[in-house]
Amino acid sequence: MTSGARADARADLRAEVRVFVGDAPVDAAATTLATGRGLAYGDGVFETMRATGGTLPWWPAHRARLVAGAARLGIAPPPDAVLDREVAAFVAAAGEAAIKLVLTRGSGGRGYAPSTDAAPVWLLQAAPLPPPMRAGGLVVRWCETRLALQPALAGLKHCNRLEQVLARAEWRDPGIDEGLMRDADGRVVCATAANLFVLRGGRWSTPAVDRCGVAGVCRALLVERLDADVTTLSVEDVGSADALLLCNALRGILPVARLDARALAPHPAVAGARRLLAAAHPAFASPEDVP
Amino acid sequence: MTSGARADARADLRAEVRVFVGDAPVDAAATTLATGRGLAYGDGVFETMRATGGTLPWWPAHRARLVAGAARLGIAPPPDAVLDREVAAFVAAAGEAAIKLVLTRGSGGRGYAPSTDAAPVWLLQAAPLPPPMRAGGLVVRWCETRLALQPALAGLKHCNRLEQVLARAEWRDPGIDEGLMRDADGRVVCATAANLFVLRGGRWSTPAVDRCGVAGVCRALLVERLDADVTTLSVEDVGSADALLLCNALRGILPVARLDARALAPHPAVAGARRLLAAAHPAFASPEDVP
Repeated sequence: MTSGARADARADLRAEVRVFVGDAPVDAAATTLATGRGLAYGDGVFETMRATGGTLPWWPAHRARLVAGAARLGIAPPPDAVLDREVAAFVAAAGEAAIKLVLTRGSGGRGYAPSTDAAPVWLLQAAPLPPPMRAGGLVVRWCETRLALQPALAGLKHCNRLEQVLARAEWRDPGIDEGLMRDADGRVVCATAANLFVLRGGRWSTPAVDRCGVAGVCRALLVERLDADVTTLSVEDVGSADALLLCNALRGILPVARLDARALAPHPAVAGARRLLAAAHPAFASPEDVP
Repeated sequence: MTSGARADARADLRAEVRVFVGDAPVDAAATTLATGRGLAYGDGVFETMRATGGTLPWWPAHRARLVAGAARLGIAPPPDAVLDREVAAFVAAAGEAAIKLVLTRGSGGRGYAPSTDAAPVWLLQAAPLPPPMRAGGLVVRWCETRLALQPALAGLKHCNRLEQVLARAEWRDPGIDEGLMRDADGRVVCATAANLFVLRGGRWSTPAVDRCGVAGVCRALLVERLDADVTTLSVEDVGSADALLLCNALRGILPVARLDARALAPHPAVAGARRLLAAAHPAFASPEDVP
């Protein structure tokens, strides 16, 4: 996309936020949101997605993850047909945009005790796409903030994200793009807003997310397409890798050009991974995204 | 309070929710809340307080904790004078009620990266008081959901509360009032919505909250007034205790009458602790609250 097209996309963001209670859109939702469990406890799950050409190419995978995450938390999602219809209408109006869907448990219950019959409160937001990647790839650092081990929540894209907020707040230098996070035991898990893939000895691998971390939609696709190993990775494994890439469903594959003091040269395996992804999602096929 | 007075208090809840951006109240705040970091990430802290007679007797302690928690997260709170003024006006209209103050980082920033100059979004809610305690004391169980070890967030009353939601969702039996939680290492920490004090050999103790758990306002007062030890407690320590009590700023001291299969007889040390608390907070001096 050219920068002109990107500016047009921003101007096109008419439908910026829409709020639902159960199956129905609501207009004056301030009290609903203010008293809801989403705001009170982060009691919900979310998806961050990339709209392109008025569609969401990976929507079925995002919907499946949303519904599975809600099930693990005991939140009843709206029917698939309602989600499909409302998301399609919202995305059609959003142009080229980042789309966020937040599904919360809604209101009710007493304190932490969830209501057994509350209608979920959910919302759709459209936002401008993030700025283009730095030419050549990301500059990445190690974060000090660790991810706590919590198997009950691991893998979920839930709304309890203070660890990521604290990690991302560790630096303000605009010359640094992302930070890698370790768990409480020192194992490498992910970046603050992306999954990590590591190339060693000609094979890709990515950290397991069964103790903490998010099971990304783009990660799942790459595990399959790259035949990647899901495994345990140490700081040394990552520091000595032949190539590193970060990925998420908003920005696709982002090559890592530097990790702290170490520069990583462009690697043909990363370019190959980006071509694979471009074949799977039209938004990641632009010249900007596949250099 | 009589049940008649309680019904009156409910009818009196005119000012149920009020939302602020920075120093100013806002009327139509749905978009503010929907796009804010409170809902997106649980990026905030909160206080749950007990209003009585149009006042909040422990407000200075709650405000101090709120401001200290915000500082640890890098959230700029409204000035003390603004908090004091708005809370006083809200509480005066709320009668006998549970008051909740939620302070979020507001909107802005890019993804997890906090904005450096966003106005905080905060809100006040009034809700009816919880039902009276079961005669004789609480029936308590052990929860399976563990608290993850996260020193960066330990002690804070932050809005990432999915662990408590999952723990409280473990039972629906109305014959059970609360659940005790352990950390990932098996140490006892707290109940889902209260701190725990344990009487052994004539001395009170309460678990440390430097790895997980919330540093409760009522807990702090009791640590001082009961000269309690802040220490490590095992399941066996709790199971063999001479007496147990739970506490929070909404309900005061709640004696534990049963922990799973074990009945605990009323203990004079618990009655003494309740008298101490009644002297410190007028709402906890009613016949209902100090049997």
